[in-house]
Amino acid sequence: MARTNSRDQELRARAEAVIPGGMYGHQSTGLLPDDYPQFFERGEGAHIWDVDGRRYLDLMCAYGPNLFGYANPQIDAAFVRQLGLGDTLTGPTALMVELAEAMVAMVGHADWAMFCKNGTDATTMALTTARAHTRRKTVVRAKGAYHGAAPWCVPRPTGTTEADRAHQILCDYNDVASLEAAVAEAGDDLACIFAAPFKHDAFVDQAEPDPAYARRARALCDQTGALLIIDDVRAGLRVARDCSWSKVGVQPDLSTWGKCLANGHGLSALLGSDKARKAAASIFVTGSFWFQAAPMAAAIETLGLVRNSDYLERITALGGRLRSGLAERAAAAGFSLRQTGPVTMPLFLFDDDPDLRKGFCFSSEMLDRGVYVHPWHNMFLCAAMTEADIEDALNAAEGAFGALKRQSASLQPVPKLAFLTTGGTR
Amino acid sequence: MARTNSRDQELRARAEAVIPGGMYGHQSTGLLPDDYPQFFERGEGAHIWDVDGRRYLDLMCAYGPNLFGYANPQIDAAFVRQLGLGDTLTGPTALMVELAEAMVAMVGHADWAMFCKNGTDATTMALTTARAHTRRKTVVRAKGAYHGAAPWCVPRPTGTTEADRAHQILCDYNDVASLEAAVAEAGDDLACIFAAPFKHDAFVDQAEPDPAYARRARALCDQTGALLIIDDVRAGLRVARDCSWSKVGVQPDLSTWGKCLANGHGLSALLGSDKARKAAASIFVTGSFWFQAAPMAAAIETLGLVRNSDYLERITALGGRLRSGLAERAAAAGFSLRQTGPVTMPLFLFDDDPDLRKGFCFSSEMLDRGVYVHPWHNMFLCAAMTEADIEDALNAAEGAFGALKRQSASLQPVPKLAFLTTGGTR
Repeated sequence: MARTNSRDQELRARAEAVIPGGMYGHQSTGLLPDDYPQFFERGEGAHIWDVDGRRYLDLMCAYGPNLFGYANPQIDAAFVRQLGLGDTLTGPTALMVELAEAMVAMVGHADWAMFCKNGTDATTMALTTARAHTRRKTVVRAKGAYHGAAPWCVPRPTGTTEADRAHQILCDYNDVASLEAAVAEAGDDLACIFAAPFKHDAFVDQAEPDPAYARRARALCDQTGALLIIDDVRAGLRVARDCSWSKVGVQPDLSTWGKCLANGHGLSALLGSDKARKAAASIFVTGSFWFQAAPMAAAIETLGLVRNSDYLERITALGGRLRSGLAERAAAAGFSLRQTGPVTMPLFLFDDDPDLRKGFCFSSEMLDRGVYVHPWHNMFLCAAMTEADIEDALNAAEGAFGALKRQSASLQPVPKLAFLTTGGTR
Repeated sequence: MARTNSRDQELRARAEAVIPGGMYGHQSTGLLPDDYPQFFERGEGAHIWDVDGRRYLDLMCAYGPNLFGYANPQIDAAFVRQLGLGDTLTGPTALMVELAEAMVAMVGHADWAMFCKNGTDATTMALTTARAHTRRKTVVRAKGAYHGAAPWCVPRPTGTTEADRAHQILCDYNDVASLEAAVAEAGDDLACIFAAPFKHDAFVDQAEPDPAYARRARALCDQTGALLIIDDVRAGLRVARDCSWSKVGVQPDLSTWGKCLANGHGLSALLGSDKARKAAASIFVTGSFWFQAAPMAAAIETLGLVRNSDYLERITALGGRLRSGLAERAAAAGFSLRQTGPVTMPLFLFDDDPDLRKGFCFSSEMLDRGVYVHPWHNMFLCAAMTEADIEDALNAAEGAFGALKRQSASLQPVPKLAFLTTGGTR
C-alpha cells in the first residue's frame, strides 16, 4: 500500500495540539484502521475526497445524513435561497409550520412535531415528554442500544454520575420475556419503553425487529399508560416513508428523527401523537439554533423527494445487490460474512473474527481500492448511488477478499480493539 | 394601534394544530405582549421583517446569534462556498483544525477547543469534563442563572427528575459569603464552579461581576482542585475579544461559547486549558452535525471580523448612546428606568413595575414604532447597527414613553405574567 497521506498527517499533528485527543466523537478514526483518513476535503453525490485528494465511494454517508447525495443541488438551492432571506432570526418563519405539517402528513402516528438540532436533543425531549405525561420516572430500553450522547444514555460513562442514569431498566432487544420482566420491575413507575427501530448496536450483528416483540412493547405501554418511543434518528427514511416500526404494524406514541431529515443540514425532530401533546407543550426545551429556517427549507425539499421519488425502492435494490454480491465474492475467496440489518443500512462482520483483525484488513483493502467501508458500525446507502457504484464496490471487494486471503495467516491482533476480546472498555 | 397581522394569525392557527402549544422555547411569544409577531419573513443587517411585512429594528438579534448583521454577505459567502465543497461529511475538514487554532489564539485561557451545536451541548460537556477531571460530582452555580435546557440545568423541571439535578449546590451571584458556603458544603466533592460572565437572569436586573467574587471563585477552585467554568454562550464576543471574565482579570479552566460564534450559523464550543485536556479527551460526546464544515467556515470569517474590526468599540459606543438616550427620554416623560448589564446587552426595567405592566405597554408601543424590544430578557446589539438606528430607537422611545404616560393610570395587570407577583411558575 503506497499511499501518500501527508496532508492528513499534518492536520492530525496540528489537531493533536488544539483538539483533545486530536479528534472526538463518532467521526474520530481512533477505532478505525490506521490508514483511514481523518480529514476530508469535499463530497459530491455518493463520493468523498480526503484532504490528500483521494476519492472514495462513501458507504458511510456521513454516518447517515447523506440520503440524496452530498451537495444535492435541489436541496441545497432551497437551503441557500432561504439563507439569503433569513436563517436564525428573532422568531421562526412559516417554514417551521410547513415542515411540521409535512411530517405529520408523512408519519402515521404523528399529530405534532417539535424541532431541535441533535438526535440527542430529540431523544432527551422524548424521555422528558414521557415523564411529564405519565408523572412517572422509569424508562425501559435495550442493552447496548445507542440513543445519543447525553449523560442519561451515553455509552461510555466517564464524567457522568449514577444519578444521571437513575430510573432506567435494561432489557434484551427482541426478547419478549426480558421486556416483560423489565416492565414488571418498573412496577407502577413505567414512563416509557424506548426502542430502536431495529437493533443497530456497534460491533455486533444487527437484528430486524421481531414483530411479536414490537407488538408486546405496544401492548405493555397500552396496559400501563406508558408511552412507546421509537428512536428513528439513525434509521428514519431508510426503512420506510413512515416511522420504521410501521413495517411491523406497530405505531409508537413518540418518535425521534434526525440525521438525513434535511440531507445533512442540522435538524432533528420529535414527533408525537395527540395523547402526548399536552405533556410536550409543558416541558422546557430550546436551543439557540433550533428555529433556523434554512435547514427547515432543506428538510421540506428532502421530504418532497421522499414522497415523490422512488429513492427507497432504488436504495433497497442497490442494497440487495451489494449484499448478494458481497456474499458471492466472500464465498468465492473462502470467507463467510454475516450481513445483517436492512440492506439500506448494511453491516458485515466476518465469521471467526472475534477481534476484527479480518474486518480491519478487509476494510483497509477496500479503502485502498476507493471504497470507504466501516468495519464495525452499520453503513448507509444513499440515493445518489448507482448500479455502477455498487459494481465498483463489488469489484473492489473481490480484490480486497483476495488480498485478505493472502494476508490471512499472518494477521496480527489489532491493539486498539483489544477491549473486544478482553472485556475492557473502549 | 391599527395593525394588520392576518398572516401571523393564520400561521399561529396552523401551528396550534401541529406544534405543541403552537410554539415552544425561547422564541415563543407566550410571555410577550399579545401584539408581538410570532413568525418572521426575513432579516437583513439590523432589521427583521415579520410575516405581515412589517420591518423592525431588532434589538434582540435572534437572542444573540446576530453579531455582524443578518445575512452578512462576507460571512455567508464563506459559508455557501464551503457548503458547495462539503458540509456534513464522513469526517471533519481542515476547517475544524483552523477554527480550533483561531479560538485558542483568541481566548487567553484556552489551549484546546471542542465543537458542538447547542449552547447546552457545551455547558453539559463542561460539566462532564470537570467531573472526569476531578473524579468528583458536585457543581456549585448561581441561583437563577441560565446554563441551558438539559435536564440538569433546565429552569422549569417538568418531566425531569430530582436525580437529574443531583450533586448541585446553588449560591447567590456576586455574594462571596454565599459562594464560600456552597463550596464548604461541597466538602471534598467539588468538581466545578459554574459561573455566568455577568448576571443575566430573566425578569430581574442584570449585574456586572464583582471582581472580588470572580477572584474568590478562582481561588476556591485552585485550593480545591475543582475547575472554574465560565458560561460565555450568551455574552461571548459582546464583552471582550477573550473570555468575558478577562475584563476582571480572571481566567477560567473551561469556557463555553455559542450563539454569535458563527453569526447565526449553528455552532457552539467548549474551550479549555491544558489542565483539563486529558479529561476532555476521555468523555464520550458527539452529534450528527457537530463536524459540519460550513458553520466552521462562517465562524472563521466571524472571528476574522472580531480580530480585525472595531465592532466591539462601535457596539459599545452605540449601547452607551442608547442607554443615556433612554434615560433622558424616560426622565423627560416622568419615568425611571433601571438599565443594567453591559451596554452591548441591555436590559431595562421600569421602577415601580413589579408585574411588568408598564414594561409590556412600553414594549408594544416600541413595536408599533418599528423597534423590537424585549420587556424582560436582555437584548443584544449588533455591528450592523448605526448611529441612525439608535436615533430611530430613541425617537420611538420618546413616542412610546408619551403613549405609556397617557395609558399609565388605566393599565391592567398582565394575566400571563401573574407568576411574577404571585410566586407561581411560568
